[in-house]
Amino acid sequence: MFMILTKNDIEAMGRIERLNLVNSLTGPKPANLIGTIDREGNPNLAIFNSVVHIGSHPALMGFILRPAGDVRRHTHENIRATGVFTINSVGVEVIAGAHYSSAKFDAEVNEFTECGFTEEYLPDFPAPFVAESRLKIGLAFDSELPIPSNGTSLIIGRIEHVMMDDSLFAPDGKLDFESYDAAAVSGLNTYYSVTKKAVFPFAHPGKFPETLNEKKV
Amino acid sequence: MFMILTKNDIEAMGRIERLNLVNSLTGPKPANLIGTIDREGNPNLAIFNSVVHIGSHPALMGFILRPAGDVRRHTHENIRATGVFTINSVGVEVIAGAHYSSAKFDAEVNEFTECGFTEEYLPDFPAPFVAESRLKIGLAFDSELPIPSNGTSLIIGRIEHVMMDDSLFAPDGKLDFESYDAAAVSGLNTYYSVTKKAVFPFAHPGKFPETLNEKKV
Repeated sequence: MFMILTKNDIEAMGRIERLNLVNSLTGPKPANLIGTIDREGNPNLAIFNSVVHIGSHPALMGFILRPAGDVRRHTHENIRATGVFTINSVGVEVIAGAHYSSAKFDAEVNEFTECGFTEEYLPDFPAPFVAESRLKIGLAFDSELPIPSNGTSLIIGRIEHVMMDDSLFAPDGKLDFESYDAAAVSGLNTYYSVTKKAVFPFAHPGKFPETLNEKKV
Repeated sequence: MFMILTKNDIEAMGRIERLNLVNSLTGPKPANLIGTIDREGNPNLAIFNSVVHIGSHPALMGFILRPAGDVRRHTHENIRATGVFTINSVGVEVIAGAHYSSAKFDAEVNEFTECGFTEEYLPDFPAPFVAESRLKIGLAFDSELPIPSNGTSLIIGRIEHVMMDDSLFAPDGKLDFESYDAAAVSGLNTYYSVTKKAVFPFAHPGKFPETLNEKKV
């Protein structure tokens, strides 16, 4: 059976139920830890489920930043202060620690140690990477686009460095997230592993896609 | 072993390799079909991997729109002309047809029939839903935020209708994407199923998350 909820039904929901539902509607989301540092050298780490591909050339990634809440505010202040941040893909084996980074820790708490992660740095790039991540991206702040409809922002970064386990990388540039065991998220707190079902060629009119791999869909 | 790619390494890649790599860097992405209609009643359907949660109250979702390419242009023109669009979650059983919608079909081609889907309509809401989807959202155009860094846009819609298989919906608002068999995507053409690993409570400082469910991580 199908159920239909209208805008009014959603507005009439309790806050938590509405948060859970609306955060689920996009489908499976990527789980990423964003690492930043303030001018005094205090690192910050927080999970974001809103990282989105903006473009490949130039290579740009973005995420939605909510102004309310300490966790997000530290991330924002640090990016604006230092001009850099890292995006670190979350593997299934560290989802508990990654989720813990969403707690509202005080500014002086180091979320890396608190959540079981290790800071890692590249020369001449001040933002901390997550050593435990198998895919880590260092970005320079590019732009912030305010979203007037609800006071959030789209923060965009230019990719400066990509560090990854070389077993992830195929010659054509594709990354294998199943062997990597990358986590996906739905809503605010449900975590998934992913299993590869099909790789399709670029689609052309008149040719219904057949899988490039041998796995059955 | 870890490999490190710099900005210059990425810029020096071939176009396809760079597209594959940079599109993979966010981690697993949601697979959604966006349905629109023009003023003459011709429907359009195209897959997007960039749908992102913008906010819950008001309930807003967005996606990144590339201006180049016919598929995207039809989506854009139709949204601006009619003020409405639909986001339809892709189940694993229809990934081949969903991927096929990324082909550059001529304007007169109906991607619904061409890709094996069925149009479905709600009264007083002109944009077509995908009947085969178990989670379909009807949105009213809210705003378009141009992204100056690469000429793309963030298109934001206000959620007007949610239609879903009622077996998906839990009383707390969470949706179960494993039982639903929602697809995730990496890069441009690798599709995954998802398997639930853990549900955590909201995180609080001092309480390292333990799973709410019985599944082992």
